[in-house]
Amino acid sequence: MTLRRPLLLLVAYTTLFVFLAPPAQADEGMWLFNRPPKKLLKEQYNFDATDAWLMHLQQASVRINNGGSGSFVSANGLVMTNHHVGADALEKLSTKSRDLLQSGFYASNRADELKCPDSEFDVLVSIEDVTDRVNAAVKSAADSAEAERQRRAVMNTIEQESLETTGLRSDVITLYHGGLYHLYRYKKYTDVRLVFAPEQDIAFFGGDPDNFEYPRYDLDICFFRVYENGEPAKTPQYLKWNPATLAAGDLVFVSGNPGHTDRMNTVRHLEFIRDCVLPSWLDVARRHEVLLTSYSQRSAENARQARDALLGCQNGRKARLGGLAGLQDPAIMALKRAEEKAFRKAAKASPHAAACENAYATIDKSLAAYMPIRTDYEMLEHGQAFQSKLFGIARTLVRLAEETAKPNADRLREFRESNLESLKQGLFSEAPTYPKLQTALLADSLSLYLERTGGCGDRGNEELLEKVMAGKSPDQRAAELVRGTKLADVAVRRQLAEGGLNAIEASQDPMILLARLVDQPARRVRTIYEQQVEEPQRLAYGKLANIRFTLFGADTYPDATFTLRLSIGTVKGYTAGGESFPVWTTMAGLYRTAEEHDYVYPFNLAKVWLDRKSKLKLDTPLNFICTDDIIGGNSGSPVVNRAGELVGIAFDGNIESLVWDYVFSDEQGRTLAVHGSAILESLQKVYDAGPLADELMGKSL
Amino acid sequence: MTLRRPLLLLVAYTTLFVFLAPPAQADEGMWLFNRPPKKLLKEQYNFDATDAWLMHLQQASVRINNGGSGSFVSANGLVMTNHHVGADALEKLSTKSRDLLQSGFYASNRADELKCPDSEFDVLVSIEDVTDRVNAAVKSAADSAEAERQRRAVMNTIEQESLETTGLRSDVITLYHGGLYHLYRYKKYTDVRLVFAPEQDIAFFGGDPDNFEYPRYDLDICFFRVYENGEPAKTPQYLKWNPATLAAGDLVFVSGNPGHTDRMNTVRHLEFIRDCVLPSWLDVARRHEVLLTSYSQRSAENARQARDALLGCQNGRKARLGGLAGLQDPAIMALKRAEEKAFRKAAKASPHAAACENAYATIDKSLAAYMPIRTDYEMLEHGQAFQSKLFGIARTLVRLAEETAKPNADRLREFRESNLESLKQGLFSEAPTYPKLQTALLADSLSLYLERTGGCGDRGNEELLEKVMAGKSPDQRAAELVRGTKLADVAVRRQLAEGGLNAIEASQDPMILLARLVDQPARRVRTIYEQQVEEPQRLAYGKLANIRFTLFGADTYPDATFTLRLSIGTVKGYTAGGESFPVWTTMAGLYRTAEEHDYVYPFNLAKVWLDRKSKLKLDTPLNFICTDDIIGGNSGSPVVNRAGELVGIAFDGNIESLVWDYVFSDEQGRTLAVHGSAILESLQKVYDAGPLADELMGKSL
Repeated sequence: MTLRRPLLLLVAYTTLFVFLAPPAQADEGMWLFNRPPKKLLKEQYNFDATDAWLMHLQQASVRINNGGSGSFVSANGLVMTNHHVGADALEKLSTKSRDLLQSGFYASNRADELKCPDSEFDVLVSIEDVTDRVNAAVKSAADSAEAERQRRAVMNTIEQESLETTGLRSDVITLYHGGLYHLYRYKKYTDVRLVFAPEQDIAFFGGDPDNFEYPRYDLDICFFRVYENGEPAKTPQYLKWNPATLAAGDLVFVSGNPGHTDRMNTVRHLEFIRDCVLPSWLDVARRHEVLLTSYSQRSAENARQARDALLGCQNGRKARLGGLAGLQDPAIMALKRAEEKAFRKAAKASPHAAACENAYATIDKSLAAYMPIRTDYEMLEHGQAFQSKLFGIARTLVRLAEETAKPNADRLREFRESNLESLKQGLFSEAPTYPKLQTALLADSLSLYLERTGGCGDRGNEELLEKVMAGKSPDQRAAELVRGTKLADVAVRRQLAEGGLNAIEASQDPMILLARLVDQPARRVRTIYEQQVEEPQRLAYGKLANIRFTLFGADTYPDATFTLRLSIGTVKGYTAGGESFPVWTTMAGLYRTAEEHDYVYPFNLAKVWLDRKSKLKLDTPLNFICTDDIIGGNSGSPVVNRAGELVGIAFDGNIESLVWDYVFSDEQGRTLAVHGSAILESLQKVYDAGPLADELMGKSL
Repeated sequence: MTLRRPLLLLVAYTTLFVFLAPPAQADEGMWLFNRPPKKLLKEQYNFDATDAWLMHLQQASVRINNGGSGSFVSANGLVMTNHHVGADALEKLSTKSRDLLQSGFYASNRADELKCPDSEFDVLVSIEDVTDRVNAAVKSAADSAEAERQRRAVMNTIEQESLETTGLRSDVITLYHGGLYHLYRYKKYTDVRLVFAPEQDIAFFGGDPDNFEYPRYDLDICFFRVYENGEPAKTPQYLKWNPATLAAGDLVFVSGNPGHTDRMNTVRHLEFIRDCVLPSWLDVARRHEVLLTSYSQRSAENARQARDALLGCQNGRKARLGGLAGLQDPAIMALKRAEEKAFRKAAKASPHAAACENAYATIDKSLAAYMPIRTDYEMLEHGQAFQSKLFGIARTLVRLAEETAKPNADRLREFRESNLESLKQGLFSEAPTYPKLQTALLADSLSLYLERTGGCGDRGNEELLEKVMAGKSPDQRAAELVRGTKLADVAVRRQLAEGGLNAIEASQDPMILLARLVDQPARRVRTIYEQQVEEPQRLAYGKLANIRFTLFGADTYPDATFTLRLSIGTVKGYTAGGESFPVWTTMAGLYRTAEEHDYVYPFNLAKVWLDRKSKLKLDTPLNFICTDDIIGGNSGSPVVNRAGELVGIAFDGNIESLVWDYVFSDEQGRTLAVHGSAILESLQKVYDAGPLADELMGKSL
């Protein structure tokens, strides 16, 4: 599975850096729907991407708020995504006696569909270029601190105006890391209900060992239905199902929301990610993985509570290790160096010579500026020191009170008026919290905080550290915080949110007190980060982007931003290590692989799969591969053919694709997708879900 | 299970530091057999520890060369230790089709006993005080570099003379971190054969979640037999089995080899361990744990290959996390600070005031001296950059050639003449190496080497790094090294060892070439470490030890050194978190716990345990707890009563004991042991091992 969470810990310090790639080659590209590569498609594939074709695909595509993608697959609000994208909702809907991740779920009629506690599904309705307005609001004389404030203010304002005018979710997206600003308007669905999920054993067959590998045999699918006013939403822009088998060479498109890429980074910036960002991130991820594994082994109930988080950890670890392996490969870095050298040489011979070199120097300086605040920024503002949902709730409540007391234009981005509804949906989620798990996670992160802040390397704010620990050990402090807080109760959260600043200041809830204690120091370091790291990088990368436009033309795509993109590719096998990999696997291969592993976890199959084997057409293609350019966040993206019909659903990339964070190559890198025909076959013959299959095939319920 | 490996990565930089503890209280103490606490035993327990009683116990105790303890339990060379100590040999005796760790093993007659490839069991025959000779050899005017050389020379020489005179393995042990030097002479057994092991499911019931926890239900035992000249060795000094049930308050002794403690460290030194040593160690351990877990899930055969290493990782991680939790507990650090303050105050009022403060300053300085060489020392000399058995073999071959070309007195300690036989037994071991596992481990450690050496913190020797990587990525480099080396073949190792320096210099084996490339830089950093860190600490802690002797008397015990010690305690329950813990668990509790966990791993039971349940006396005590002072290395130590009879075998400590690395408390900390009666009960009724049970009970075969 690819990352459903778009690089949670990386996003904040690598979101906004870019210079434009050289003109895309082969099947590279995460194209904007309002700047599609029509010429390339015509020349290379003799395909006319009409506006109608594009608009249909755009409006049939769904963004899923926990970091994944999906699509409408019926006129009645039926959405298909990956099981590992739906897993978050499945976990929240589960209880000790009803483990939906483990058992799977099927609502054979609408009354049985289960309402998810905090899901939000977004559909992109329109895109508007607001670059000029954003740039005009930032006075050219402003220093980077003032520029950051002005830009934030105008973005918050544009979004709020749009929300008021249209009623649509409105986000200003920074593209080309500052080259362009586009206003994305979404229709938002928050009444989301679970329709079908297979058991995790088949959805994630092969588990961690086979994650990001090929050949694969995963039925990584999940169906939800969006409702409006208590009725299934009308979704006329849905993808028709095409059950035919694909052939090698077929042109296929992926429409989804790639989360984050760093393809435009300077070499020095990539080295920084390789040497500083990724190793530190991986140490923390492995620490969580070990903790959650150990916690899970204690009992079946523990395992249930931690399962989704553990899978997320393992997935992130393997993805990031793949990325790091790419950056530690001298051949890849040599490629990046050569690209950069060529660009700088071209710029040197142009009127932009000085601006170009200044931009590089600015980026170097911004990286240096990050080093002294790194520990405090990660611990306090990212919250690595307080890895508990309950702390997250406390911080959101504290900041909600503080920020909503300010004019919209002055607020932190996540508290802008146009985002409050989405934010509150998460804040007031009825999803359960598990005190023992919360305590274990918080104790471990407080211990990390001690290690990193009081430790032997770069030290952080030690005075604050002492106040946070309050003379206790991490275990003791975590236990008293989780035991003492009432924030697990949604009514208490609502009360505090409604009470505003007065309620927060009067609260003696220990988690609120902790969030208040940490708040100002965290804000201070965030401000330094935004002004000395983020904003200079935005200016510098924006400048480099413009130089590239001038030198090489604008026919290119921006780095991923967890917004809708179109990828282009073909169904295609590959060769690696002397071995040839076929364009698809079959159901027969699934059974063979399970048997070869003696049906031992993670290669086990549910009883129903063994019982129904004789009914299945075993040569049905199960997973297939294509050259489309995707990354974490694309999980659940529909794969469509020339006719815009659904032929599969993307769920992963192979090992060779993990370097796509930094550089694309389709020599061996591949997108992995579940084949449409396997979905129908298993719905009909394994899960007795005929009505669902009928709905997919357009037969009315 | 406690650590069978005595803190592998910690040993080298914390072995030799001490100041003497205040007079031991309660049941604290890892006493020297030649300085036993006779007075304390008499006064507190009315027990006369006669020389005969002590000598019998000493000679019935066994040190196991991979880092554990054991005891003779019959006159025919039968040795009992823990399953987790024997696991190393079990893994080496296993093949794809014979998984002894999983299945267990029983040789019902001697012809079936399995010879272990590289085990060495040592019995302490005598102790001689050589302090004066060592100190006399170190000229008082010498600087610390010269002092280190002189001390190493005299120790190597004393050992060699003793070996030549007695034929016994002879080791000069540094006690009180330089306060005393004792020569330990061992009878060495290298023909060691496996007699009995239960299946791992019962030996390590509860797995990682229950490791270092209580109540417990583990049959953590394993039997070997030592042979001489092809016959079972005659071992008249063995422990008689006492099958009676213990009672709370019973005096019990533990005789074993605690590996390493840091109880005498200065507060600054403990902070250094807390802030720098343990976090870094844990990051590496978790990285191995994640890698090995992922590798294991790929197939049953992978799991078999990695199982022992994975258990070692998990065990070390949990033990070290417990130690770190202790050091991160302000109450414990306050205790340590108060102790130190009292000692320095007493010293200040004595003629030793200046010497005392100088010693503290020297230790602070030595810690500072370590920081700039830390990365290179850990990566190159500790070999964290090259985590492959095959590299270890290559390095040993390279250094064997270099060192044996020098006079004995000048050699690195591990290549002293008196140690060569033991060293070669490991070097020429027929234990299998698994290329895929070796490649995965080596690739990961080369990646770590890149992170730490070329990274964003303290950088190491980057020029060497480039030569080591040879323009390849970690994966590529590891693959070519493991594919290219012939060192998996023992005949090739022997040929290289016999060929001496010429053979090494002529060798084109890529792993030999790598070991040669790294050798000089690694030696250089080792020399700096020994001269600027280790030796000044030895001098300073030795000085502090002598001041303590003067101020408080010499009736105390030294920090652990993986040599034979005697611990004293009683069978005793405890209360924690409001809960009372009983002095023992029963077989009934084992079945109840398995059922509560639905028999799911790691709480599963082998079929034979389910089948034989009705035959068992279910109220048989299975595990019991006592207050004896132990630490990693003590695993497998016999627990004996006043009569010197065996009543149990130590296998673990509880969570509250993990801080014993730094400070002892028996308020809640407990040693965990398997009760003798449960061993007999299961040998007879579960494993049909009547003859083995008879041998334990003194009935001749």
